[in-house]
Amino acid sequence: MADTVVSSATREMVIGFDRPFRIIGERINPTGRKLLAAEMAAGDFSRVEADCLAQVAAGAHMLDVNAGIPLADEPAILAQTIKLVQSLTDLPLSIDSSIVEALEAGLSVYQGKALVNSVTGEEEQMERVLPLVKKHGAAVVAISNDETGISEDPEVRYAVAKKIVERAADYGIPAADVVVDPLVMPIGAMGTAGRQAFAIVRKLREELGVNTTCGASNISFGLPNRHALNAVFLAMAAGAGMTSAIMNPLHPEELTGIMAADVLNGHDKDCRAWIKKFREPAAEGTEGEGAGRRERRRRRG
Amino acid sequence: MADTVVSSATREMVIGFDRPFRIIGERINPTGRKLLAAEMAAGDFSRVEADCLAQVAAGAHMLDVNAGIPLADEPAILAQTIKLVQSLTDLPLSIDSSIVEALEAGLSVYQGKALVNSVTGEEEQMERVLPLVKKHGAAVVAISNDETGISEDPEVRYAVAKKIVERAADYGIPAADVVVDPLVMPIGAMGTAGRQAFAIVRKLREELGVNTTCGASNISFGLPNRHALNAVFLAMAAGAGMTSAIMNPLHPEELTGIMAADVLNGHDKDCRAWIKKFREPAAEGTEGEGAGRRERRRRRG
Repeated sequence: MADTVVSSATREMVIGFDRPFRIIGERINPTGRKLLAAEMAAGDFSRVEADCLAQVAAGAHMLDVNAGIPLADEPAILAQTIKLVQSLTDLPLSIDSSIVEALEAGLSVYQGKALVNSVTGEEEQMERVLPLVKKHGAAVVAISNDETGISEDPEVRYAVAKKIVERAADYGIPAADVVVDPLVMPIGAMGTAGRQAFAIVRKLREELGVNTTCGASNISFGLPNRHALNAVFLAMAAGAGMTSAIMNPLHPEELTGIMAADVLNGHDKDCRAWIKKFREPAAEGTEGEGAGRRERRRRRG
Repeated sequence: MADTVVSSATREMVIGFDRPFRIIGERINPTGRKLLAAEMAAGDFSRVEADCLAQVAAGAHMLDVNAGIPLADEPAILAQTIKLVQSLTDLPLSIDSSIVEALEAGLSVYQGKALVNSVTGEEEQMERVLPLVKKHGAAVVAISNDETGISEDPEVRYAVAKKIVERAADYGIPAADVVVDPLVMPIGAMGTAGRQAFAIVRKLREELGVNTTCGASNISFGLPNRHALNAVFLAMAAGAGMTSAIMNPLHPEELTGIMAADVLNGHDKDCRAWIKKFREPAAEGTEGEGAGRRERRRRRG
């Protein structure tokens, strides 16, 4: 049973089996956002600021920070962005890049224990990223692909995750500091994507004892009513044991799905968060269906 | 692995592990509906008709029919209601009463293979209801309470369910014809109610091989935003292996939750039902978050 503890300079946050589902805000990321990319490359971080504050207000537990801009000095921009975001919020951050030099630059300015996003199962990646994670005492997201790409076979993805966890241990990084992303496939293209994801999450939890995360919106790619599908996916994944997601916390449907999953998993004590968010004077007892049914049954007992 | 086959005179319907989640419409029930009770007692079935047609239109797979009106001739009214409903729809019915004579009256007029709702683990109930179920070749809902009431311990509720399944077998009723209701507790009163329900459903499925159902709205009793919580409960229950629910199919949130669970469990082939219901011209690719994230990852591989 793993508790992944991350922190900022002043605040600790735990991703864990008996904790509320953790929302890692994904908005500070220029990938696919041309305007944001151009602004960040030009040194304008006003949108980063706004994205940071909006995600904090929405209830994110961590923020992911990515500065992947083609032809730009990613290490410098990532470090600058992290310093800025840490000046705006005390939420712990996930430092997100596929370029090792950028991860290094980010880690060198980060205050606290970061989550490095990410390492894959590729030999070169593991050899370069894991020592860095160990050196900075960070945690790391392990993505279940390797030199052969992303396998459609969940057993292969599980095996890749296991390899990364074991290699991390060789570098002195405990399993508790590895958060596995089992790679969720779009269900519109692969009908087994949901069951695959739930099965691999359960296995990662039961057999490796690791926390898990995912890019939640992949599941609904190409389908209509994506937010509703994402919300139910997140809840079912939480039911299967997933403990966090890298997602947009500004979408109310996904947020409601996660809050409901917390209630149903017993991770929202006395339903306090749910009641606080949704209480309205006339809400209680407007239907009585539940009561009627139970009372009828009780009479039989 | 159980397939519970029920039917009307002209139509078969299967509740099963590899089938879409089955919605048993609960609206034709005067419990807690004073107006409907008074009308039915006075021989006015116009509201029953409307409730029947609305539930069929909403996509219910079966309809539950209950005529539990205090001081009324329940056997006669239940039989009359069933005849009426069978004249309006070819959906199979669930015959719902706690009075054995009413079940008998309902079964005697029913055309097809009905679902009897319900038998408890009480000795007298089992001795009276199970022979009736066998005689009419029906299936039966087994409710996990007995003479001692409803246990808060899920192991006890599982044991009661097991006892009913075994007793049914003694009467020649196969496990495939027993649909267990493990009794969902209100989560506002018992924080473990969700986890309990999911665990017992999984166990009933894996160890007894039986289908399951529940009164879905119990879970949210006393809490605000009930429909959202019910929807996520149903989806998570489906993820744990629940195969049907007795519920109001007119609530769009619950229906969407179930449709999403079908997609994610791989029970909506090619997402056809989902796409048909939710397709809109601009829906595809409006975000690209999923695509961006996956493409970035693919580049690494």
